[in-house]
Amino acid sequence: MAELLEGKKAADKIIAEVSEAVKREKCNLILAVVLVGDDKASELYVKKKEEACLKAGIASIKRILPADTQEEKLLSMIRGLNENPLVGAILVQVPLPEHISEKRVMREISPQKDVDCFHPENTAKLYEGDFELAPCTPRGIMDLIGEYGISLEGKHVVIVGRSNAVGKPLALMMLAKNATVTVAHSKTKNLAEHTKMADILVCAVGKRNLITADMVKEGVIVIDAGIVREGGKVYGDVEFEGVSKKASRITPVPGGVGPMTIAGLMKNTLILYERKKKWI
Amino acid sequence: MAELLEGKKAADKIIAEVSEAVKREKCNLILAVVLVGDDKASELYVKKKEEACLKAGIASIKRILPADTQEEKLLSMIRGLNENPLVGAILVQVPLPEHISEKRVMREISPQKDVDCFHPENTAKLYEGDFELAPCTPRGIMDLIGEYGISLEGKHVVIVGRSNAVGKPLALMMLAKNATVTVAHSKTKNLAEHTKMADILVCAVGKRNLITADMVKEGVIVIDAGIVREGGKVYGDVEFEGVSKKASRITPVPGGVGPMTIAGLMKNTLILYERKKKWI
Repeated sequence: MAELLEGKKAADKIIAEVSEAVKREKCNLILAVVLVGDDKASELYVKKKEEACLKAGIASIKRILPADTQEEKLLSMIRGLNENPLVGAILVQVPLPEHISEKRVMREISPQKDVDCFHPENTAKLYEGDFELAPCTPRGIMDLIGEYGISLEGKHVVIVGRSNAVGKPLALMMLAKNATVTVAHSKTKNLAEHTKMADILVCAVGKRNLITADMVKEGVIVIDAGIVREGGKVYGDVEFEGVSKKASRITPVPGGVGPMTIAGLMKNTLILYERKKKWI
Repeated sequence: MAELLEGKKAADKIIAEVSEAVKREKCNLILAVVLVGDDKASELYVKKKEEACLKAGIASIKRILPADTQEEKLLSMIRGLNENPLVGAILVQVPLPEHISEKRVMREISPQKDVDCFHPENTAKLYEGDFELAPCTPRGIMDLIGEYGISLEGKHVVIVGRSNAVGKPLALMMLAKNATVTVAHSKTKNLAEHTKMADILVCAVGKRNLITADMVKEGVIVIDAGIVREGGKVYGDVEFEGVSKKASRITPVPGGVGPMTIAGLMKNTLILYERKKKWI
């Protein structure tokens, strides 16, 4: 039976560290969270982020806009937050309604306040191997791996999913730690052939039971970043019961990558503050 | 016996296309090439680039600086080229002498004239999946694959090498074409285990005989971007005689990826010109 990689515990530890730094440096961190529409999952994420802020000693301000908000109105609100010297970090909860261009919105957020690390000025640094600021989920996954003393050197990591929020940045981060990295996705043929090769398997798709026990090798480490809501419950991409019997270590869902993403957000808020201090 | 992927022929075709576009649009393309020091290999590359410019109808101007040039002098020369409205594209031949920061130099070149696609403003676009401008070697490899009608969809591509000039951008470009991509490198354990899985194997290391026949599967397509000079001859990463007996298709060295890189440079010079036109 696999050892659990307890994201919740590791996240609490990181949030406590952020909180200590906030007290020590007497810094006044404000995270602005913008929510467009009334998607239930998004509302839940935002609530969790606010709770984490409270624990971390970060003030959060929330801006809620109706689902039919015009793009220009959202952009103008972002510009206002960019110019507000009290606001250190800006998060626009995704997904946005279809009539709004996510790309345009993400480019509008000042790179100095871009807590999700989606702005080109920040993603260029990821490409160059500078991960001081990194998207919250891959940052959280790397921290979880670090917390459990798992070395990536020479390991074969298979990542299922190639999004800009998870798969792509994580591949770059793990390559930089000397892992051999395979990125698979919806167009991959014979997914099982690839997943079976993994020393460390990361899934970030959002498809329940995508990974079953026959698709992994004995002793694999499994990181499940998938989130699927069904009937009031949350599932990952991995069929936990079966896979956990073969894996050496596995993240639970919930309580694995999810809390680590939130901890990553807290860390990023602090990092943006410290960066700014260097400039002043 | 493998079919040869004749980079030389494909490159000649691309250069002829650039030349036609130059004539048709009556454009006045000037590529500035900066060479620091007297490295023989670099001098040879620069000579080949000048020859290609001649064929493509692109004017090239060359600036040669001694090996002990101060970084500030090089940066100031680049600033001059940035400001010169006649110069459409700037290439600084690498490697630079050790006392000069390649990173700083590459950031100094205006992103509008960054023909090698090394500036953060341009690499951020690669990360986002916009490959209009791409580093010359991966662009050349993609063009060669396209020229031979090789589909990447669902193929397993194994790339050996993770440089910013080849491995990393190529991985992103191939992912975007729906290949499943593995990136291996100097720290990969059991390299042969990975290379044997490849439908398409790309090597960009610079180590003669790194890949031998026992490391590839029957029918593999091999793209050799390695360049090793020994005793006045040029070799790739692949032990050609043995591997070509198992491969279905293979690039020769010389005459494979090398000429495609130069063709990529010609294409990038034209692309920068066309981008500028859109802005004027």
